[in-house]
Amino acid sequence: SLEKPLLVSVRSGAAISMPGMMDTVLNLGLNDQTVEVHGKLTENPRFAYDCYRRFIQMFGDVVLEIEKYKFDRIFDKVKDQVGAVNDTDLDAEALAQVIDKYKALVQKETKKPFPQEPRDQLVLAIDAVFRSWNNPRATVYRNANEIPHDLGTAVNVQSMVFGNMGDDSGTGVAFTRNPSTGEHALFGEYLMNAQGEDVVAGIRTPKPVKELAEANPTLYKQFSDTVQKLEAHYRDMQDIEFTIEKGSLYFLQTRTGKRTAAAAMNIAVDMVNEGLITKEEALLRVNPKDIDKLLHPTFDEKALGQAKKVGKGLPASPGAATGQIYFYPEDVVKAVEAGQKAILVRTETSPEDIEGMIAAEGIVTARGGMTSHAAVVARGMGKCCVAGCNDIHVEEARRVFHASGQTFKEGDWISLDGNTGTIYEGTIPTREITLAGSFGTFMGWADEVRTIGVRTNADNPGDAAKAVEFGAEGIGLCRTEHMFFEEDRIPIVRRMIISRTIEDRVQALNELKPFQKKDFVGIFEAMKGLPVTIRLLDPPLHEFLPSEAEDIEKLAGDMQVSAEELTTLISDLKEFNPMLGHRGCRLAITYPEIYEMQCRAIFEAIVEVAKKNIAVQPEIMIPLVGHAKELEILGNMAQEVGDKILGEAGVSVPFTVGTMIEVPRAALIADEIAKHAAFFSFGTNDLTQMTLGFSRDDAGKFIGEYKIKGVFERDPFEAIDQQGVGKLMKLALDLGRAAKPDLKVGICGEHGGEPTSIAFCHKLGFDYVSCSPYRVPIARLAAAQATLGQ
Amino acid sequence: SLEKPLLVSVRSGAAISMPGMMDTVLNLGLNDQTVEVHGKLTENPRFAYDCYRRFIQMFGDVVLEIEKYKFDRIFDKVKDQVGAVNDTDLDAEALAQVIDKYKALVQKETKKPFPQEPRDQLVLAIDAVFRSWNNPRATVYRNANEIPHDLGTAVNVQSMVFGNMGDDSGTGVAFTRNPSTGEHALFGEYLMNAQGEDVVAGIRTPKPVKELAEANPTLYKQFSDTVQKLEAHYRDMQDIEFTIEKGSLYFLQTRTGKRTAAAAMNIAVDMVNEGLITKEEALLRVNPKDIDKLLHPTFDEKALGQAKKVGKGLPASPGAATGQIYFYPEDVVKAVEAGQKAILVRTETSPEDIEGMIAAEGIVTARGGMTSHAAVVARGMGKCCVAGCNDIHVEEARRVFHASGQTFKEGDWISLDGNTGTIYEGTIPTREITLAGSFGTFMGWADEVRTIGVRTNADNPGDAAKAVEFGAEGIGLCRTEHMFFEEDRIPIVRRMIISRTIEDRVQALNELKPFQKKDFVGIFEAMKGLPVTIRLLDPPLHEFLPSEAEDIEKLAGDMQVSAEELTTLISDLKEFNPMLGHRGCRLAITYPEIYEMQCRAIFEAIVEVAKKNIAVQPEIMIPLVGHAKELEILGNMAQEVGDKILGEAGVSVPFTVGTMIEVPRAALIADEIAKHAAFFSFGTNDLTQMTLGFSRDDAGKFIGEYKIKGVFERDPFEAIDQQGVGKLMKLALDLGRAAKPDLKVGICGEHGGEPTSIAFCHKLGFDYVSCSPYRVPIARLAAAQATLGQ
Repeated sequence: SLEKPLLVSVRSGAAISMPGMMDTVLNLGLNDQTVEVHGKLTENPRFAYDCYRRFIQMFGDVVLEIEKYKFDRIFDKVKDQVGAVNDTDLDAEALAQVIDKYKALVQKETKKPFPQEPRDQLVLAIDAVFRSWNNPRATVYRNANEIPHDLGTAVNVQSMVFGNMGDDSGTGVAFTRNPSTGEHALFGEYLMNAQGEDVVAGIRTPKPVKELAEANPTLYKQFSDTVQKLEAHYRDMQDIEFTIEKGSLYFLQTRTGKRTAAAAMNIAVDMVNEGLITKEEALLRVNPKDIDKLLHPTFDEKALGQAKKVGKGLPASPGAATGQIYFYPEDVVKAVEAGQKAILVRTETSPEDIEGMIAAEGIVTARGGMTSHAAVVARGMGKCCVAGCNDIHVEEARRVFHASGQTFKEGDWISLDGNTGTIYEGTIPTREITLAGSFGTFMGWADEVRTIGVRTNADNPGDAAKAVEFGAEGIGLCRTEHMFFEEDRIPIVRRMIISRTIEDRVQALNELKPFQKKDFVGIFEAMKGLPVTIRLLDPPLHEFLPSEAEDIEKLAGDMQVSAEELTTLISDLKEFNPMLGHRGCRLAITYPEIYEMQCRAIFEAIVEVAKKNIAVQPEIMIPLVGHAKELEILGNMAQEVGDKILGEAGVSVPFTVGTMIEVPRAALIADEIAKHAAFFSFGTNDLTQMTLGFSRDDAGKFIGEYKIKGVFERDPFEAIDQQGVGKLMKLALDLGRAAKPDLKVGICGEHGGEPTSIAFCHKLGFDYVSCSPYRVPIARLAAAQATLGQ
Repeated sequence: SLEKPLLVSVRSGAAISMPGMMDTVLNLGLNDQTVEVHGKLTENPRFAYDCYRRFIQMFGDVVLEIEKYKFDRIFDKVKDQVGAVNDTDLDAEALAQVIDKYKALVQKETKKPFPQEPRDQLVLAIDAVFRSWNNPRATVYRNANEIPHDLGTAVNVQSMVFGNMGDDSGTGVAFTRNPSTGEHALFGEYLMNAQGEDVVAGIRTPKPVKELAEANPTLYKQFSDTVQKLEAHYRDMQDIEFTIEKGSLYFLQTRTGKRTAAAAMNIAVDMVNEGLITKEEALLRVNPKDIDKLLHPTFDEKALGQAKKVGKGLPASPGAATGQIYFYPEDVVKAVEAGQKAILVRTETSPEDIEGMIAAEGIVTARGGMTSHAAVVARGMGKCCVAGCNDIHVEEARRVFHASGQTFKEGDWISLDGNTGTIYEGTIPTREITLAGSFGTFMGWADEVRTIGVRTNADNPGDAAKAVEFGAEGIGLCRTEHMFFEEDRIPIVRRMIISRTIEDRVQALNELKPFQKKDFVGIFEAMKGLPVTIRLLDPPLHEFLPSEAEDIEKLAGDMQVSAEELTTLISDLKEFNPMLGHRGCRLAITYPEIYEMQCRAIFEAIVEVAKKNIAVQPEIMIPLVGHAKELEILGNMAQEVGDKILGEAGVSVPFTVGTMIEVPRAALIADEIAKHAAFFSFGTNDLTQMTLGFSRDDAGKFIGEYKIKGVFERDPFEAIDQQGVGKLMKLALDLGRAAKPDLKVGICGEHGGEPTSIAFCHKLGFDYVSCSPYRVPIARLAAAQATLGQ
């Protein structure tokens, strides 16, 4: 019946909330006359006019395809004229003006007046909702989330009820459980003699929904019974809108409620305990990405809302950090030693900066992507990082950076939100979140369900122990180069690199060996018999040499060569494309003594640990193999060194030798390579760089534009490019397993901690994924969801 | 009968001459006693002892597996003791000493004396030859040349004849045709009363074999009749060894004779004309690589033998050059303008150096590989180049280079042999080789036979015309970036790059357009209706900006910005891995106006040429595509610009848009890409770099070691890595043709001029190969040979 209710709500019935879909209530003012009547009736002419205005705009924009900016221009002009700041500042008179101009626009563009017949308007409104299914934002959203385009939407038409018809009327919003904490208790607010708009406008302060129990116990009982029925029916926490019209309770809407990560996990565990859902359903209720939020501090939300933004970069490593700006790692170290909180800000970071990165509260870089050095290292440490922030321009030498027209000096305070990539001026209080009690239960269910293993990437005993605490079942990638950078080793490493004879090099390597051995002993002990995959030296040697003139001079003094000679040597070692240079196993083919030393250190460590009766499960991994012969030569070397050292010590520890698959050629000839490998570990960082032909450090210049133009939807360094890189992975896996059916296969690139990539690896039949310690819980859940077919 | 002949020759009967096979005559001294007898008999005890020594060593090394260096050590020690420089300086007495020590070594290592029974020794010698089939060098050789390992060898045992038994005895070597020129006339030398060793030793001067006709007409007739019979039987020019023993003629050996490139071609053409062989056989007789030698100058061989070597690099571009050293391109230009001959010596070259490279006689670089900038550009120009010469250390700023302990200054003379990669001190006279008369005939036959097209890589009308002269059937790759470097354009290009607004950039691009249009008009006119594939801008923009402080300051002045600002801008554009950076179609996705300008220039040029009634067949090529969407966006742009400009001019010229396949991902999703491409052109330089994961500029540091250790047999930048890159090419071709059966497919990487790679492309079913102008004849012959199944 269109006579009695003067307003109806017309809304999308799409099962999924999609951007661009008309999924909010459209309170439809039916025509000029009813607006007047309604204005009087509800004693809220602003509300009535506003509904009418919005309808005209939607009708014009979506149905008649009048460009939206034309409506916006009218609205903004009226706002200017009456000196309004917010949309809600417009009074009924001003809105009436807007409506007149809107109608004039429709008349001008369509040569027809705006329809006044209620039935015509309703049909138009319904049409607008149906059309919104195909608006560009909804289409992009469906593509990104793999929602079929032919699913279609329904349209709901509801008659309006009014909460502003006197003191026996009211309106409110409630959640069946606490959306912040997950606590199982009704949570919400209501206002008497008010419409939904009044609650939103914030003019009056709403009351907690519990108070309704005192004010009107009968109504409250009816309300809380219904609410529980709705939750039981939908088997999930509900977000409910309700209105009381002259003492009668109406439910306007119920939907699955948004919640924080902690609440999601607590609710899921509670509901299993209540028998409402199964463990499997519970596992599917939590977004793996949200787990990050449980493991890192966050900003106080209120303070964050008032903070002034400085710039926005990539959310490279989650968390929140506040501190004083420093541009040089050594300055960070000094400041922290002096009791300060420091943020390291640099154009980009390099392995030399590691000590400063460890000491800093957070890290900002102006260049580099989600898998740049800063991002990878920060995530490994669970440290907040904003990378590739093009908005800021860093001048290290002058110890300043420029952003949004301001200059920030050393010692100034900034705050970083690693979850959004935003940088703020000044300090913002942070909140440490402690792991909720249900965390262990929930993750235990994930482990019961998942079939793919979860390992960690860890280079030192501390990270290894942290990862085991987070549930890692082994180390999938232990990089050995970070060990070379520590203060007591780097001078020896540098002497090794600038050796003129093999004897000098071997001498320096022999001095390094005890350090390496100690590293491995520590890691083996921390892992207590879990598998440990050790990757032999990977980066090009020039990464270990200094680049600043000052440091070169110092090194030259230490090494007793002239600075000139050393500069020449360093420049001879420089490479045009270091990513594609003399590194990985290529170093070992030309300087076998480097890997030999590393293998000796590994096996001597094994002997030491084994003699303490601690179990050890070593796997030696040769990086950057592209030709089977490389692996054959180096694998034989490792095998011989191992057999000799274990044999001489009378220790029997099984060990295996395998390789990274990170060079496209290795994937193409994986059958040949598998003959010499006990395992493959996909290094999808490099594999992506080489297969797509762009370096993650340089891609920042175009990756944004690529997303905008739809060349790809997700940064391929974030989620595996399944169509391209994934095809190569499948090829390699099929060839490898055909040649060696018991080949163990894992992934140790950054993708190993990303849910869609984990699902992909699960589908291909990988044995394990490996990721940084802080991503281990994410991976465990994502792996479980992959098993559950999501 | 082992009694009468005191010496026999035991030799491999392998059909193919292989390194490591015992394919030279082993004159076997049977035992201590016969050595004595033979010594008296032949009055040449040195020869007898030497035979005996060599047999003991071979027997010990191959049959008894005593390490070779132990024999070498003995020999070298005796040489030292008697003060001998060459092996042949040892007299009979010294050799007898060597023999005694050798026998003692055999006794010590095997606990048995060296066998003295003639029959035992013969069996051992035969055994040694058979075993040599499996020596490592022969195995590697068979692998590389695809000779089956189970083919096996025969062993020939011949009784010896003696040319040193008086004045009615003699020995000689003869070719049935002149091996230098190919002239159809007996060519050779002989010595009376001598053994083969005497001819080799060079103590006496042999006489031309023609003189035997006068000295002994009957014998000469017998000789020349037999020689002709042998050539007719083997249907190829023969290299013959003969001996006259007491008036009787013996033929020791006949084999196909080695010959120069010119001789090979002349002989092949003559033999077809003589009816001895077919055209097809003639085509298989010439090694395509040797054709290079017909197109470039060479050094006078005698002078070369006496020249002092300075160092050795890669034979990057063939030919010979002599000139004075200059380190800066502008100095080369000045010197050449002043009438000098200049050699440009640099650590590496970059596109900025192009004018100096054009002016120089030859180019030397200390770094970079066979496909470095210097190498590619030099080959394109047919200019001699030695690249990646690690033996020299260049200090551009001081205008010197260091090599073999010497310092070479600006203005010093050096000579380069581009065929071997050797650098010599001082001047060496060069010989210009004019194309032999048979060249045209021979290449015509190649064109009749081959089925795969041959195009050229040319960036300017001069190169294009040269290539057409050499038989190119179109341009497979016209790079547009070299056009940007010319003196009158580079300031505009730089202004375009440092533009702050899109308007400024478009303004600069509009100024560039007339230049580009002129370039294209010139190339279209030179190609007279043959297809021209134009690749749109490929390199990263920073390549166009100066790197020296001085140049930056000058540019800053021109551009009216501060040097500091410009330095910052240049450093912002610098990339960590430029190969994997913001280049190719990625530039055009972010700055569409660049390709748009280039397309306008192309189509305006087409209109201009078409209006002159000159046929034109343009193909627009988008580089570095990895995602189908890139090609879709840019292909549509090119199509629209083309349709508009041709339409407005009322000119109807069919044109196509296609892409390079050079990013591994493009190969993997070639079916998707083919939907938007009329043609694929494999850019195997980049495809190899990305698939193998090493940059051609950096690989020099390990590629040598990789060859030595057998990781690969040929530099993958020289010949297509068929197992790895080739697999990807086949995948791409199959996917591409499945999606679009009439897809045109070619190759435009450096491999397009390399015979085994051409054969591979032929086998895959490519439509054409494209190579630098000087390689076009090589490619034509290699393509013919591929058709003939070689």
